[in-house]
Amino acid sequence: MGEVNIIIGLSGVGKGTVLEQAMLITDEDYKVINYGDRMVEIAKDQRLVDSRDDLKKLDTETNKQLQKDAAESIFDDAEDNDVIVETHAAIQTPFGYLPGLPKWTLENLEPSKIIMLRAEPKAIYERTLEDDSRDREHEEVEQIEEYQEVAREMASTGAVLTGAYLSVIENPDGHAEQAAEDLIEVLRG
Amino acid sequence: MGEVNIIIGLSGVGKGTVLEQAMLITDEDYKVINYGDRMVEIAKDQRLVDSRDDLKKLDTETNKQLQKDAAESIFDDAEDNDVIVETHAAIQTPFGYLPGLPKWTLENLEPSKIIMLRAEPKAIYERTLEDDSRDREHEEVEQIEEYQEVAREMASTGAVLTGAYLSVIENPDGHAEQAAEDLIEVLRG
Amino acid sequence: MGEVNIIIGLSGVGKGTVLEQAMLITDEDYKVINYGDRMVEIAKDQRLVDSRDDLKKLDTETNKQLQKDAAESIFDDAEDNDVIVETHAAIQTPFGYLPGLPKWTLENLEPSKIIMLRAEPKAIYERTLEDDSRDREHEEVEQIEEYQEVAREMASTGAVLTGAYLSVIENPDGHAEQAAEDLIEVLRG
Repeated sequence: MGEVNIIIGLSGVGKGTVLEQAMLITDEDYKVINYGDRMVEIAKDQRLVDSRDDLKKLDTETNKQLQKDAAESIFDDAEDNDVIVETHAAIQTPFGYLPGLPKWTLENLEPSKIIMLRAEPKAIYERTLEDDSRDREHEEVEQIEEYQEVAREMASTGAVLTGAYLSVIENPDGHAEQAAEDLIEVLRG
Repeated sequence: MGEVNIIIGLSGVGKGTVLEQAMLITDEDYKVINYGDRMVEIAKDQRLVDSRDDLKKLDTETNKQLQKDAAESIFDDAEDNDVIVETHAAIQTPFGYLPGLPKWTLENLEPSKIIMLRAEPKAIYERTLEDDSRDREHEEVEQIEEYQEVAREMASTGAVLTGAYLSVIENPDGHAEQAAEDLIEVLRG
Repeated sequence: MGEVNIIIGLSGVGKGTVLEQAMLITDEDYKVINYGDRMVEIAKDQRLVDSRDDLKKLDTETNKQLQKDAAESIFDDAEDNDVIVETHAAIQTPFGYLPGLPKWTLENLEPSKIIMLRAEPKAIYERTLEDDSRDREHEEVEQIEEYQEVAREMASTGAVLTGAYLSVIENPDGHAEQAAEDLIEVLRG
């Protein structure tokens, strides 16, 4: 039986880059699975949706069942491989932060480690800046800070519910390689 | 079936004012229920207490059952209406922060959203200042900060346990109307 | 039936000193139990290990069962006495923060209070400083800060899962006696 490792982090934190680099330099074999992609695949198989966009239209109970099914399917993948699940602890929406790892997802994934990639809110802001207007910089940096704090709070809850390690890896500007090495170190443990 | 929305926030954060304004300007119909009041009503019906003050004298198990009963009764109210439950994520006492939304309350409420009204600790301090002595200002502002952080941590846990959105709405001095509009926006989602 | 009180705090926060002082000046009788020690005792009784070091070699499921057994055994001790359990909400390891109070431990302990002793990260750093090199001071203070924040997040989750009070007691330099008095006050509640 392999291990399920969950990797989380805000968009703009560099999760994709760090994970890619880590997979290039590690000697171990990990199956990397995007949790959202897996949900879409299963929803299509169950003829619940035609496309990713339709996911939003599912009612709460169907969505919850789908989250469980995706988690179970990933857990099954871990029978033969160590698995890395890419997802979010919290998803920012106009109506608040939606937990990406609710209780039933966590309990079906049975993760060994929850690994959070983090960076300074100011750095995340710079990385995701789309235009050259900086009028709302202060406010937006504060919102990124809040978002990242809530994500860690939800990840801490996930660790208590499952007994998983909660690991926080810093990814400061220009140090993705170091972050990748830290990630490999944590995965190895 | 309507939705259960929970609104939380420290005393002094302006929850009452913002909620009142929001109810005046929204087109939707919400049943607003104070969780503590509902507990007292049910405790009186069950002849457990004569007054609110007696609640403190109940033993742990009776109190827990009462919390569940109140949550179920509110959930039933949501059959025909969208409901807004006013309560606290954490209650400051001389013996520590008591969770206002423990696991069994959350599980029986099945909330769609947990909405936290927040303000800067310094502003909350000013709003609740009772005398003109400011000797302990720094210390008290720090305690309000800690209290508000713990409340959000407990609310984050509640979101993970139930899958509810966690929404944080700022209520800075003199902007209650904006906060009320933000609240309506979130409730609508 | 007595009460189970859990006391947590990072190493260097002064938990031992404060607890010892509190036990000297209180009129009440508490049975103080170290959770790690109890786990070792039970593991030895069950012939799972010969020494504390062997604990690390146990597989996840055996370790989880041992955590439950230790929690139940402590809960039994609370039948005749008020109990104080010394432990950690989070344990720092090279692979991340391991929850010291996972869901199953909490549910079997049924604590009345979770009491966190805290100090400023800078003070904890000074107290645990082992050599006179301060090259990494800033970084290490930041890591202590993160560690202490994660510990409180996990403790907040524990309060929501069990309904226990979460109490945070400050232990600034040179004020262990005040912290001991605060602790007695909280335990009395």
